Amino acid sequence: MALKKKPVTGMKDILPKESRIRDYVIALAKETYGSFGFSSIETPCVEHIENLCSKQGGENEKLIFKILKRGEKLSLEGVENENDLADSGLRYDLTLPLSRYYSNNAASLPSPFKALQMGNVFRADRPQKGRFRQFMQCDIDILGDASYMAEVELITATSTLLGKVGFKDFKVRINDRRFLKAMAAYCGFDEEQYDLAFIILDKMDKIGPDGVKAELVSAGFGEEAAAKYLDLFEKTSSDVEGIEYLKGVLGDNLEAGAADNLQTIIRLAGQTKSVPFEIAFDPTLVRGMSYYTGTIFEIEMAEFGSSVAGGGRYDEMIGRFTGTPTPAVGFSIGFERIITILLDKDYEVPGTTDNIVFLLEKGLPENRVADAMKEAAQLRADGTRVLVVQANKNKKFQKEQLMAAGYTNFKDFYKEELKK
Amino acid sequence: MALKKKPVTGMKDILPKESRIRDYVIALAKETYGSFGFSSIETPCVEHIENLCSKQGGENEKLIFKILKRGEKLSLEGVENENDLADSGLRYDLTLPLSRYYSNNAASLPSPFKALQMGNVFRADRPQKGRFRQFMQCDIDILGDASYMAEVELITATSTLLGKVGFKDFKVRINDRRFLKAMAAYCGFDEEQYDLAFIILDKMDKIGPDGVKAELVSAGFGEEAAAKYLDLFEKTSSDVEGIEYLKGVLGDNLEAGAADNLQTIIRLAGQTKSVPFEIAFDPTLVRGMSYYTGTIFEIEMAEFGSSVAGGGRYDEMIGRFTGTPTPAVGFSIGFERIITILLDKDYEVPGTTDNIVFLLEKGLPENRVADAMKEAAQLRADGTRVLVVQANKNKKFQKEQLMAAGYTNFKDFYKEELKK
Repeated sequence: MALKKKPVTGMKDILPKESRIRDYVIALAKETYGSFGFSSIETPCVEHIENLCSKQGGENEKLIFKILKRGEKLSLEGVENENDLADSGLRYDLTLPLSRYYSNNAASLPSPFKALQMGNVFRADRPQKGRFRQFMQCDIDILGDASYMAEVELITATSTLLGKVGFKDFKVRINDRRFLKAMAAYCGFDEEQYDLAFIILDKMDKIGPDGVKAELVSAGFGEEAAAKYLDLFEKTSSDVEGIEYLKGVLGDNLEAGAADNLQTIIRLAGQTKSVPFEIAFDPTLVRGMSYYTGTIFEIEMAEFGSSVAGGGRYDEMIGRFTGTPTPAVGFSIGFERIITILLDKDYEVPGTTDNIVFLLEKGLPENRVADAMKEAAQLRADGTRVLVVQANKNKKFQKEQLMAAGYTNFKDFYKEELKK
Repeated sequence: MALKKKPVTGMKDILPKESRIRDYVIALAKETYGSFGFSSIETPCVEHIENLCSKQGGENEKLIFKILKRGEKLSLEGVENENDLADSGLRYDLTLPLSRYYSNNAASLPSPFKALQMGNVFRADRPQKGRFRQFMQCDIDILGDASYMAEVELITATSTLLGKVGFKDFKVRINDRRFLKAMAAYCGFDEEQYDLAFIILDKMDKIGPDGVKAELVSAGFGEEAAAKYLDLFEKTSSDVEGIEYLKGVLGDNLEAGAADNLQTIIRLAGQTKSVPFEIAFDPTLVRGMSYYTGTIFEIEMAEFGSSVAGGGRYDEMIGRFTGTPTPAVGFSIGFERIITILLDKDYEVPGTTDNIVFLLEKGLPENRVADAMKEAAQLRADGTRVLVVQANKNKKFQKEQLMAAGYTNFKDFYKEELKK
């Protein structure tokens, strides 16, 4: 039977050019986060089906690649639904495995624990351009630190990494779920209607304040309440003064300390940054995942439209595994997004070593092959990338291919008799 | 429902200490093979079930983690066997995906193509100490080069890597499947009995020549033929002279050119090596996979008993995908074996940067936190790993944990009032 040449639907083969960029960014992330004291950790790609389906994953739980039970555990009789057939699945994010990892290994980990994860996740999403069913996520998390220092370190480290990759003019938008709730409460929204309000608020970028107001009203929110809500955003500046203003207006609707905490984060991140970026308070920032409990943030770059990283504080999720409340805050970097941007701009990995191809004519005597290989060994020891290959019949085409693969220098080794 | 804390059966969480060693060896492999002109490539972890079950994978095909079909494609009615339920599975090696990759992308790849793959593979093996159901493989392959140069480059590059990791006194054992066949033919074995003879021969290390002879006889090989067979091994030295001797004895049983080819590889690998190692002709080396067609080799280290890398030439496998015969030779490095050895000997990753922990007392004023963070940024820019954390109540225990995590320097930041 003929074998299938294409990868499975929605997944992709990574060619050398892209691999080079990926390897470089991975190494840069490990180095940068390492300098901030983040430890690399790894969890299996395969996770218990019970954990994957525990309602922490939101919509992603609909996209699980489930793995068939094996051997005696697989019975094809009396199967009522697919979960009778599966005992595990591929992870759809790195947050759930991190929670499991921490609960399994907390005794051998320092507290607070700063973790860096770079690994593949899998989602049986509808295939579409630029979105794949296997993709790499890069997550950094600080577990066991309830203070604003965790947020500041995450933002500083991530902006340092983006700067090293060569990005400029990025902007950190920051908010706190507690502001979202306090503003909704202040305007008299029903608590059960908060999530609906936030979903509509999340469209502010696209439909503007008038659009948001109109949608709120048509969703059943009172005209007056909606007007009061929009007025709050109108009057709030995107800096620490904006937070101060809201603190005064919202009064007891806002949890004590939330405003000071967010102001401190903004001030400190602004003072300790190692590359230039703007940090702005954005009370319209929502972020979808229901597990966030406090600060939420995103990094966006004007030239690319959408965000390249996002995260927030999720102080309750780990406790569900461990039984012990554990504060946690994390950042997920859009690794694939960054790679796509770099590929699109024909990014050259810096510090690529000198290179040369030794093209050895077929039938070159053994002693001359040995000489070529010894010369290659010497050059490699000095830091040059040396490819030693036999010359093909169509050497011109071969050289073209090698130039496309990034080689710029060639040395031909001919049989003695041809040299005369 | 309580969540499951342990990883799925047979898979493991990787703790920071091991991650550090893994990251280092991965980076070293990418750098070393890169200097030999190998390009990193990547294939999805998920592969078509038809490809995985195409009989190229031998025993590994019994160990596939199969993935359930999804949505409308999954029908629970009239299911007769598990393959009705699965459309894909997790790859059990990197060789089959490489073949598919090459057939899918050959037009955009140079010829010959030198590939480096480092990726996880999955086998639903019986769990046992030191063997896991998800593990990393490191494969290097040269596709499109029929000459001995490919073997020499693989051996030279791999020994260079092992030397960089710090291994000494390793030995390359080399043979050619064509010698195995010629020796069996010379002794008059039935061609259908070759594989059986090789399985017995493979035990030479453990049961010695007498044991091999006894097993051959009891398996039905003639007493005289078995004696003739063992006598050949007895008389063959483990160097190029040994090959010369066999070439003379085996005559037409041996494919023309096979002896010269193997001698050239041994001579060249010996001349061009960048670290000291022994290379020996070993006519008893068998290696299991049926897809090998020519040279086969292994690297072993006396102090660790078993081999840490092995491979060979498989000139027919790629052609089964592409329809075009494509010579190929590859080496698979026992990545997990190497990591286990390094962990067992408390390996210290070289060049680990200077480090310090800033322990900030709870309630430290914001301006002093800012000072600490700025100081940290400066140290990081100079190459020091700086962990900034809030001090726990039990600071002694916290420091012990951090020392276990590799930190050696600490700086305490106290609130002003305590300094008096």
